[in-house]
Amino acid sequence: MDGTFDKDQYESGYVRTDLAIERRPAAGQGIDFVQEEKNGVKITRIRVTDAEGERAIGRPRGNYVTLEIGAPWLMGASERENAVSLLAREFTAMAAGLCRMKSVLICGLGNRSITADALGPAVADALVITRHVKLREKKLFDSLFSLEVASFAPGVLAQTGIETEELVRGAVERARPDLVVAIDALAARSAERLMTTVQLCDTGIAPGSGMGNRNGALDRKTLGVPVVAIGVPTVVTSSTLIRDALELGGIDGISDALERVLENGRSFFVSPKESDLAIRELSAIIARALNSAFGSDVLD
Amino acid sequence: MDGTFDKDQYESGYVRTDLAIERRPAAGQGIDFVQEEKNGVKITRIRVTDAEGERAIGRPRGNYVTLEIGAPWLMGASERENAVSLLAREFTAMAAGLCRMKSVLICGLGNRSITADALGPAVADALVITRHVKLREKKLFDSLFSLEVASFAPGVLAQTGIETEELVRGAVERARPDLVVAIDALAARSAERLMTTVQLCDTGIAPGSGMGNRNGALDRKTLGVPVVAIGVPTVVTSSTLIRDALELGGIDGISDALERVLENGRSFFVSPKESDLAIRELSAIIARALNSAFGSDVLD
Amino acid sequence: MDGTFDKDQYESGYVRTDLAIERRPAAGQGIDFVQEEKNGVKITRIRVTDAEGERAIGRPRGNYVTLEIGAPWLMGASERENAVSLLAREFTAMAAGLCRMKSVLICGLGNRSITADALGPAVADALVITRHVKLREKKLFDSLFSLEVASFAPGVLAQTGIETEELVRGAVERARPDLVVAIDALAARSAERLMTTVQLCDTGIAPGSGMGNRNGALDRKTLGVPVVAIGVPTVVTSSTLIRDALELGGIDGISDALERVLENGRSFFVSPKESDLAIRELSAIIARALNSAFGSDVLD
Amino acid sequence: MDGTFDKDQYESGYVRTDLAIERRPAAGQGIDFVQEEKNGVKITRIRVTDAEGERAIGRPRGNYVTLEIGAPWLMGASERENAVSLLAREFTAMAAGLCRMKSVLICGLGNRSITADALGPAVADALVITRHVKLREKKLFDSLFSLEVASFAPGVLAQTGIETEELVRGAVERARPDLVVAIDALAARSAERLMTTVQLCDTGIAPGSGMGNRNGALDRKTLGVPVVAIGVPTVVTSSTLIRDALELGGIDGISDALERVLENGRSFFVSPKESDLAIRELSAIIARALNSAFGSDVLD
Repeated sequence: MDGTFDKDQYESGYVRTDLAIERRPAAGQGIDFVQEEKNGVKITRIRVTDAEGERAIGRPRGNYVTLEIGAPWLMGASERENAVSLLAREFTAMAAGLCRMKSVLICGLGNRSITADALGPAVADALVITRHVKLREKKLFDSLFSLEVASFAPGVLAQTGIETEELVRGAVERARPDLVVAIDALAARSAERLMTTVQLCDTGIAPGSGMGNRNGALDRKTLGVPVVAIGVPTVVTSSTLIRDALELGGIDGISDALERVLENGRSFFVSPKESDLAIRELSAIIARALNSAFGSDVLD
Repeated sequence: MDGTFDKDQYESGYVRTDLAIERRPAAGQGIDFVQEEKNGVKITRIRVTDAEGERAIGRPRGNYVTLEIGAPWLMGASERENAVSLLAREFTAMAAGLCRMKSVLICGLGNRSITADALGPAVADALVITRHVKLREKKLFDSLFSLEVASFAPGVLAQTGIETEELVRGAVERARPDLVVAIDALAARSAERLMTTVQLCDTGIAPGSGMGNRNGALDRKTLGVPVVAIGVPTVVTSSTLIRDALELGGIDGISDALERVLENGRSFFVSPKESDLAIRELSAIIARALNSAFGSDVLD
Repeated sequence: MDGTFDKDQYESGYVRTDLAIERRPAAGQGIDFVQEEKNGVKITRIRVTDAEGERAIGRPRGNYVTLEIGAPWLMGASERENAVSLLAREFTAMAAGLCRMKSVLICGLGNRSITADALGPAVADALVITRHVKLREKKLFDSLFSLEVASFAPGVLAQTGIETEELVRGAVERARPDLVVAIDALAARSAERLMTTVQLCDTGIAPGSGMGNRNGALDRKTLGVPVVAIGVPTVVTSSTLIRDALELGGIDGISDALERVLENGRSFFVSPKESDLAIRELSAIIARALNSAFGSDVLD
Repeated sequence: MDGTFDKDQYESGYVRTDLAIERRPAAGQGIDFVQEEKNGVKITRIRVTDAEGERAIGRPRGNYVTLEIGAPWLMGASERENAVSLLAREFTAMAAGLCRMKSVLICGLGNRSITADALGPAVADALVITRHVKLREKKLFDSLFSLEVASFAPGVLAQTGIETEELVRGAVERARPDLVVAIDALAARSAERLMTTVQLCDTGIAPGSGMGNRNGALDRKTLGVPVVAIGVPTVVTSSTLIRDALELGGIDGISDALERVLENGRSFFVSPKESDLAIRELSAIIARALNSAFGSDVLD
C-alpha cells in the first residue's frame, strides 16, 4: 500500500495539505486572492504570480480555485444541481485559459479498492466517453458530440508495479489529447474540509502530493500538454487532527507532544465513517460537471 | 446515518470503547484477569463476577475474551490459519459454557454500505448455511452437518426504519436457535487496536454500544436464548485520538482542550485508509473460524 | 443456491414466466384487458375477475399492470423521468385501491450477491426511510414526511437458512404497516422483456414463482395486510430461449427436442451480459418512483 | 458497450467460440492433439504446426492447452488446490518455452463493471505485485522475489475511448517485461464449458475474439515480446444455445431457423445466473496459480 507517512515531509509542512487554500488562505506578495459566494458556495481564487508566491504557498505559479460545496451526502436535488453547474463553469473557464480543447483525456488517479482513494476511478467510470465513436463514425457523431473524450484509470504503483506517470504518459502519447484532466483524492489539513471542498488547478499534480505518494509529476512539462487537476480532500493524518485540536485548545508544547506521537509511529491516514457514501456522491457530481462542460451530458 | 457522537456518553466513559480490555486492563475486586500467548497471539480472559466488577468495567458480569491477532492484511497464510484456529477454539469453549448447541443463528449486524460498519454482514455472507438443507432432507444431511446454521443480516435502523433488535427478535422466534451469535463492528479507544483485535463475550451486545447507536440490547433476556457477541474495533472517535496523544505527550489541561474541541462539534468516527482490505480479511477469518466451530468447513 | 430448474413446473407452464401479460396477452372470460400508450410507454392493465380467469392466466384474481418502459441503460434523462413518473402514478393508483396508506414496509427480495437477483435489495438500499425519524421526533417530521416508510431486505433461503416469508412475517409483526410492497426479480418467457418491463400487481407474490424458488406466499392472507408486488424480469431459462426460437422458426417437433434438452439437464437461468448496468438503472428508477409516491423525494 | 453480435463473423464460425478445443476437438493434418487426465481434470494439448492446421482450427500456429477444472463454485478446498497447482504447472511449462522470464506484465483485460467481463481485472487485483519493490530496494527483495511482476487493467474501448492494444503497448514500452500474460473472458460454444474450462495459449489474443470486440491483436508481433493468453469462457450467444439444442435434438432445418432468428436481431450474449460467484472463485484460482508460478505466493 502506498501512502506511508513521511515525517520529514510532514515537518516541512508539505504533505500536511494538498489544498492551496489551506497553505496560505490570504493574499500577499506574489499571491492574488479573491473570494465570492454563489448560491451558498464559497469560491476562492488564488493566483500565484511569482517566485515569492511560490515559496509562500509551496506550490508552482498558476491558478488554484476552491469550491466549498458542502457535504454532498446531505444535499437535496437542487443543491446538487447547483454544485454541478458551478463546477462545470469553473472548469470550463480554467480550461479555456489553457488550450482550444477539441480532445481531452481524463485520468482517474487512485486505487479503486480503497474507498478514500477511489474518487478518480469513480469519476472515470461515470464519464460519457466519445473518442472512439467520433473516430469510427465521424459524420454521425460530429454533430452530436463536439469533443473527443477519453478516460483512463491507471491504478496506483502498489497495484501495478509501474509508476502512474509512466502509464499516463503512455496513454497521452496514444490518445494525443489537447488537455489532460487529472482527478485525485487529496489530503487535507482540516477535518471540516473532508469530502466538502473541490479544488481545481492548472499546475498539474505536484510530486509527493496527496495520500497516494504518487511521485512523478503530471504536468505540462512531463506530459507535453496542459493539465487541469481536480482534487477533493478525503483523508487527514491523525497527527493533523491532533495538531489542530491542540491549536484550537491553545495548548502549549504542541511540537513536543507531536514529536513524541510521531516518534511512536502512530500517525496514519484516516477518513470519516461516511466515506463510501461521500465518494459516491462526489464522483457523480464531478462526472456530471465534466460531462456538461464537454457537451456530452445529453446521455447523462 | 446512525453513530452521531454523544458528548455525555463520551464524558461518562461509556462509548469511548467497546472493548472490556480497554476499560479495565487488569484484575481487581470482582474481576478475574488472565493472559496467555499462543503462537504470537495474546489472549486475554476477563471475567466479571460481581456488581463491583460491573461498576469498574462498565459491563455486565460474564466472560470477555480478547485475541490480539495482529493486522490481517499483512498476514501470510500460516498466520491466518493460526488466527482462524485460535478463534474457533475460543468460540467453541465459550459456546459450550452456555448451551448444548444444536442450532445456531448468526446475526451479522451493521450497515454493509459503510465499509467500517460492514463486518457483520460480510461474515454472514461467508458462512456455510445448513439449516434449510437439514430441515428439508434430514437423512441426507444429518451425517454431513451436525449443526443447523442460519444467518441474518438485518441492516441498521437508518436503512430499515425498524429497530435492529426487533428484526432479530422476529428471526429468533422463527428459527428458534439454541444460541445467537452477534457479529458487529466496535469502537475502540486505541488506534492500535483497530482491525487487529477480536473480542468474544457471552453477555450480549450492550445498549448504546458501538458506532451504530443500536439501542436495544441483544442478550439472553431480550432474545430468550444465550448470545455470544463477536466484535472487532473498526473506528475510533477523533477526540479519542486526540486524548490519547495528549496523555502520551504528558500535556496538562487535557480536559479543557477536549472540552473546547467537543464544543466545536468536531468529533467524528474515523477509520484507517486500509479499512476495505482489513474488513475483507477479518470477515474471512471470522467466518472460517465459525464454519470450523460448526463443523461445516467441509464446504469452505 | 436457489433457483434449480423444475421440469414438472416447466412442463405445466407455470414457471416459464412470472408476467401475467405473457400468460394470457388478451381479454377473455374472467379477464379484462386494456392497453394504452403514454409518452412511448405501453401500459397494459389485466384484471382477473373470476375462477375461469384465474385458470386461464394461472394467477389469482386481482390487478396486473405492466409498463414496457424500454431499456433503462439506453435512456436519456427525460425518458428516465418519464418512466419514474408513470411508475409512481400506477403504484399510487393501485395502493389507493387497497388501503389508506399511512405506513408502508418495502421488502427487497432476492440475493444481493447475484446480479440478476439483486433488484429487490438494490431498491431497498435507495429508498428514503422515514419510519424511525417520525417515531422519534413526531412533531419535527410529521410536516416533512406524510408516510412512515420502512424497508427490509431479508436475503434468500440459501443465504439465511430461514424461509423468506418467515422473516418477512417477523418484520411485518413488528413494523405493523398498512401496506407491504414486495420488490423482486422475475423470470420472463421472452428475452425481449428482460430488464425492460415492470409489472405491478395487488395479489402478492405467488408460491413457486420467479427465479428464486421462494416457496411461501407473501400476500394478504399470509401477512395480514395488503401487498403490492413490483417485479422486473431479469432472467430467462435457456430452454425458453430455445422454445421461442423454434416457434419463431416454425420448426416441427418442438416438444420432442425440448424433451431431450431437458432430459440432459442443460436448462439453466441466463441473463444478458449488461445485467449489472441494467439492474443499477432499474433499481434507481423504481426507488425514485416509490420515493415520489411516498412523498419522500425531497431528499432524493 | 462492446460486444455487439456480428452475424458475418458468426456465420463464418469465427466468433462462435474462442476455445481451440471447440473448433477442432481432434488431431488432423497440421494439428497434434493429446489428452490426459490428472486428479479428475482433463487436460487437452493442441499444437497447430502448419498452415493447414491453422485453416482447420481458425487460429495461428502455436500451443493451446485446455484444463477442464469443473465448477469452481462447487469445489471443496482440496479440489481448488488441485486446480491451482495444475494451472501453475501448465503456465510455467508454456512460459518456459517462450523466454527466460525475469520480469512479467499481466494484463487483466475486460470491463470490471460487467460481471461476465470482469475476469481479467479481478485476476489483476489479486496478484502479488513485486516490480516496484524490487526496483526500489533491490538488495532487500531480490532474495525474497525472483521475478519482477507488474500488472495493468486497461479497461475496454467503451470505457476509455482508446483501443486496448494501444494502452497495453504503452505499458509494455514502459515496464519492458520479458513476457506479457493476457487474461480475458471468452465466448464459448457450449454452455457446459461456461466458467469451468481454462485455456492457455502462446499465440496471443487474436483479433475479433471474445465478447469484448477488442480489435487489435496482443501478440509477439504487436507487442515485441511473447504473450501467454489465459482465457475462461464466461458467455455464450443465445443463438449458440439454440443451435446446440437443435443439433442435440436432431432437428432438420437448423440453418433456416437460425437465419430467421438472427434476422430478427435477437441474438445476444448470456451468462449463467451464478456468474458473480463463479468469477470470484475463478479469478482467485488463476491469481493464486500465477502467484505460485512467479514464486510470490509467500504473501498469498
